[in-house]
Formats: sequence, C-alpha cells, structure tokens
Amino acid sequence: MSREIEELQAALRQFAQERGWGPFHTPKNLAAALSVEASELLEHFQWLTDEQSRQLTDEQRQAVGHEIADVLLYLLQLSDKLGIDPLEAARQKMEINAVNYPADRQRGGIRKNT
Amino acid sequence: MSREIEELQAALRQFAQERGWGPFHTPKNLAAALSVEASELLEHFQWLTDEQSRQLTDEQRQAVGHEIADVLLYLLQLSDKLGIDPLEAARQKMEINAVNYPADRQRGGIRKNT
Amino acid sequence: MSREIEELQAALRQFAQERGWGPFHTPKNLAAALSVEASELLEHFQWLTDEQSRQLTDEQRQAVGHEIADVLLYLLQLSDKLGIDPLEAARQKMEINAVNYPADRQRGGIRKNT
Amino acid sequence: MSREIEELQAALRQFAQERGWGPFHTPKNLAAALSVEASELLEHFQWLTDEQSRQLTDEQRQAVGHEIADVLLYLLQLSDKLGIDPLEAARQKMEINAVNYPADRQRGGIRKNT
Repeated sequence: MSREIEELQAALRQFAQERGWGPFHTPKNLAAALSVEASELLEHFQWLTDEQSRQLTDEQRQAVGHEIADVLLYLLQLSDKLGIDPLEAARQKMEINAVNYPADRQRGGIRKNT
Repeated sequence: MSREIEELQAALRQFAQERGWGPFHTPKNLAAALSVEASELLEHFQWLTDEQSRQLTDEQRQAVGHEIADVLLYLLQLSDKLGIDPLEAARQKMEINAVNYPADRQRGGIRKNT
Repeated sequence: MSREIEELQAALRQFAQERGWGPFHTPKNLAAALSVEASELLEHFQWLTDEQSRQLTDEQRQAVGHEIADVLLYLLQLSDKLGIDPLEAARQKMEINAVNYPADRQRGGIRKNT
Repeated sequence: MSREIEELQAALRQFAQERGWGPFHTPKNLAAALSVEASELLEHFQWLTDEQSRQLTDEQRQAVGHEIADVLLYLLQLSDKLGIDPLEAARQKMEINAVNYPADRQRGGIRKNT
C-alpha cells in the first residue's frame, strides 16, 4: 500500500467522522456516489470531439481535475471500507488484462480474448 | 506524485502502446470507459441492502476488487493523458470540500453549503 | 410505434435542427448524454434510505421527474437516429427476460438463469 | 398517459410481483439499475468513432436495441412507483429546455442559458 494513499484514506476517515457521515457511507452508497462522479467527469467531454478532448482549455482542465479528484476520493473511501488495497488490485488486474487482451490480436481495435 | 502511481502509469502506457490503442485512448473515450467501469462496480451492489453491502462474501469482494481496479486503471490513464496528478488533485479537492461541507452543519445528512 | 412517442421524436428533431445540433448528436454522444442524465437521476437517491426513496417530498419528486424526462428525451433521440422502436424493443426484451429470470427461481433475490 | 406505456407498466408490475421482487424494487434501487443499464448502452459505443456509431452493423444494432429496452423498462418501473407520467414529464421538460437553450445562441455548440 502506498503511504500517500494511506494518508489520504486516514484524512477521509476523519473528515467523514467529524461530519457524522458514517451511516450514509455504506459501501453501496459509496459505489453509487462514485458512479455519479464518474458521470460528472464524462459530462465535461460529452459534446467535445476527440481532438477537443485532447486540447482542453485551462478552465476545462481544472474542472476535469476536480472531477478526477471526486472519483478518486470515493474510490479510496470504498476501498478503505472493504479492506481492498486499490494499487495492489490494479496491479493484479493488469496481469489479468495481459491474458485477456493479447497484444498480437489488437490491431485496429480493442478486442477481448473470450 | 507517488512513485507507485507513476510506475502503474508507465506500465499502462506501455501496455496500450504494445496493443496499438493510442487512437482509441482519447481523453473522451477514457472518460466514457471509466464511467462504464464505475457502473459495473455499482452493479455488484444494486440489489444488496446496505447491511449486505457491508458484509460481502469472499467471492463478491474479489469481483468488486477487480472493478475497483478497472476504475483506477482508467483514472490513471486519463490523468496521465491530461497531465493531471490525481493525488495532488484529490488533496486540493479535500480542502475545497472542507469549505463546502462545514462540519457543524452536517447533523443527519450530507449538506453542501451553497 | 406509439403516436405520442412519434410526436415527441418529431418535436425533438425540430428542436435539435433549429439549434444546429446535428453534428453533436451522433449516436455515440447521445448514448453518453443519456448515461450522464441517468446518473443525475441516481444522484437524487444516493444518500436516501430505501424508505426515504419511497416517500419523496413534492420538491424531490418534481426534481426527479425532470431527470426522468431528460433520460427519456435522450432515449427517444437515440432510438430515432438508429431507427429502433423503443416500445417494440421493450416488449421483445420482456419476452427474453421471462426466459432469463424464471419465476420459480426468484425467491429471495434477482437471479439470472445463466 | 399513453395506453401502450400503461400496458407495459402493468405487465412489468405483474412480472415483478410473480417473482417476489417488490422488496428489491425500491425507487433508489431502480434508479441505480437504470444508470447501470444506461452505461451498458454506452459501452457499445465507447471505442467507436462518431462515424462508426452512425453505421452500426445489424448485430450491434440489435444489441443496442436490447440495452435501450432495458433502460426504458427500468424508467417505466421507476415512473410507475413514483406516480410520474414520463411522457407528460418529457413534454414539460421540452418547454423548459426551449427557455434554457435559446435557438439563436446555439451556433457551434450546445449552450445552456444560465
């Protein structure tokens, strides 16, 4: 586990505790809130062309940064509640993806090996 | 920036490059994929009670861990493309949240200070 | 096809045309916008208990009605672009669901027959 | 209210009742399920270009039709639980949109009048 992530999780735990949010922060509710924030992130891109999405203005980039933060903050809180190490889970998933998406079958697409 | 996150981002960059995914991995598409993965995470919880969501079986917990990983992997790739440090963005957002959600007005709810 | 739905789709077509939105309203973008609106709908419920979600205040119910409308309006526009009759698609899907979710295996859960 | 929509809602009510799904189908859970289905719809488009999204293959179009159906079926069930007429809500929202998105300010974008 990364020390910086553990520090963020500890700060989030204290933040929620000071506000009495324990009863609201069930894993189910945190998963819903995370998906809502992910859609707010997508909202910034929904009418942009691919090219525009590569060249955000400073204002767009800052707004997108706040949404990325919101998604990450809920992800860290959910992981914390469930006792899941998100970085370790990500590393394991990359190994699974290496099997599921063989490099030599990807030309011209994103193709899962089913 | 955390060294562990930088390593994951470097591995993801190489993974995508080996598969020729560059043209697909626009920020817009990565934001869409992230929101799709966030919903797959929510799907595991959608019919559970709050109590059940707190007591996942080992099988559920592993499946949820894979979805948390998928969300994080897209978040890291999107951040990398946009030159945004996700941990720094998260720390900044927590300061904004401290202003927007005053501790002394949260009894019995999650209330934004508007 | 329902006459009322056809009238709504015709009105939406004119609305978009008067605003020059044709280039933005690709099926891909409409699907993204629909998912964003579905999350705005969920946002109203995310911190409520199941019981509270059954007893919305008048104000909540009106706000939820607007989000239901937004989801439906994008669904009708996407269906229109793709030449899909949404009511006919819904009726066909209900027949598929009758096979996938056998009534005699549902006690105490929502169980897909896989 | 459209007769065809009322018939679908009555069939959905019976379908859920025969399976004992009442306790699961809270408005909150239905809103979550709707957003999950909306993301499954988006998933079909996430790696397509805008042009490809306009020219779906027959197979893609059928799969997309099933997801459109799933979104609509949850929308009808949620509306039914809340006593909201979705077509009437859509018509009212279009009047609000006519004010919020003035036709003469839309050249080259989708701009809300704030």
